[in-house]
Amino acid sequence: MERVTRRQVIGSVGLALGAGLVAGRVSPAFAKTEGPGREVPWPYRQLDPEVVAERGYHGYYKKHCMYGMFSAVVGELADRFGAPYQNFPMDMMEYGAGGVAGWATLCGALNGAAASIYLLSPSPKPVIDELFSWYTVSELPEYRPKNAKFDIVPSVAGSPLCHVSVGRWCEVSGFSSFSKQRSERCAWLTANVAKKTVELLNAQAQGKFAPVHPIPKEIQECRGCHGKGGEVENTRGKMSCTQCHQQEPEDHPVPFKKT
Amino acid sequence: MERVTRRQVIGSVGLALGAGLVAGRVSPAFAKTEGPGREVPWPYRQLDPEVVAERGYHGYYKKHCMYGMFSAVVGELADRFGAPYQNFPMDMMEYGAGGVAGWATLCGALNGAAASIYLLSPSPKPVIDELFSWYTVSELPEYRPKNAKFDIVPSVAGSPLCHVSVGRWCEVSGFSSFSKQRSERCAWLTANVAKKTVELLNAQAQGKFAPVHPIPKEIQECRGCHGKGGEVENTRGKMSCTQCHQQEPEDHPVPFKKT
Repeated sequence: MERVTRRQVIGSVGLALGAGLVAGRVSPAFAKTEGPGREVPWPYRQLDPEVVAERGYHGYYKKHCMYGMFSAVVGELADRFGAPYQNFPMDMMEYGAGGVAGWATLCGALNGAAASIYLLSPSPKPVIDELFSWYTVSELPEYRPKNAKFDIVPSVAGSPLCHVSVGRWCEVSGFSSFSKQRSERCAWLTANVAKKTVELLNAQAQGKFAPVHPIPKEIQECRGCHGKGGEVENTRGKMSCTQCHQQEPEDHPVPFKKT
Repeated sequence: MERVTRRQVIGSVGLALGAGLVAGRVSPAFAKTEGPGREVPWPYRQLDPEVVAERGYHGYYKKHCMYGMFSAVVGELADRFGAPYQNFPMDMMEYGAGGVAGWATLCGALNGAAASIYLLSPSPKPVIDELFSWYTVSELPEYRPKNAKFDIVPSVAGSPLCHVSVGRWCEVSGFSSFSKQRSERCAWLTANVAKKTVELLNAQAQGKFAPVHPIPKEIQECRGCHGKGGEVENTRGKMSCTQCHQQEPEDHPVPFKKT
């Protein structure tokens, strides 16, 4: 892991400003970081992915996944650069815990990541797409925190949803969804998502952002009929279709390909 | 609809403070509203649900569902009371659009509602539970904005997820998920969720919050084995089980009851 130097960090402000101008999403905060900070994006300054990952791990044990992820990135910016980052009411991000107050909807690490990306990126959507796609198809966690409590086996979530992500890991690991090991797994995952988010934001700030996780072919096939411009056009989204639509409708013209 | 008077609004600050003390989640912001606003919860002051609903409707057409919902509540507080509400970088909440950047995960109106509830409530979890449960089982939208563009038929989402909520409405209405009517439906829904959120927060501030939408029996039955303390203990969450688990595993001891 290459360390990001202070010089690189300072240099990145100019790059971020450039990227912002290209994308047409530039706020006064870019020119005046001591400003009130109401406008977004706030300037992103390159961070060390490992430092942020470790913050994510420890943040998880303070106020869970979404807070862990969001405070890893925005808290690190706050500690290094002060305002406007330090003025964010960070603790509100506890709301995303367990897929929002335990509802197991969207993975809290992803919810916090998307929030931080919109707060900090001049062109947030492609970064979120890449992050969510990576999360969905990768064996995670792949980052081991320095003071890990247990060994954690990785699994492929196949989904950005908390319930599916946790359920798949329980299947693979054999642990209960209420075990200490499952908490530790989500702490690792929070660290991992924080690390990846910062890697993507750093790449974007350097003008080197290049997504490598497109929407899988199976989903694109479904979207051919069910998505925008298709015959049926009754669905939105980029999640796996067959993960929930397990039964093939009798009159469905093309056989399902299970992902 | 009973209008909330200025006097009631001012009176509610004291009540909110009292509720905060009871719940043990009191921040310096309660005592000093001109403070930096880093700590949560920020003081909630009772709002007019209809005024907030209308803001939600118009906010949807500015930056979509999550922004529409969040800015309806926090923007109304900002316009009436200034700091700390006015300092929030509201535009970041665009991230939740279409279930986060179009991924169709968590409904953006609910994501924005949960965020605002954690920011403002001294005891946020029961309010989120009640809101999400109400959203899942109710015929929505039930609130008609004053300058509606179309007539919108209601539907029951059965889920807090964007994909399911939109898909069910497309089924009931016959409209495409990319139609102007679908956008209008989501604008009404944003207004409706904003109205309900404020009604629940007002009730809590008055010490009258009483949830009436428990987790449905069918889900509780599944949780008996799959949830905390059950034999299998392999799942978390409060969403419908059979909506996605459509096929009964061959060795499942009790028949599925489809919701």
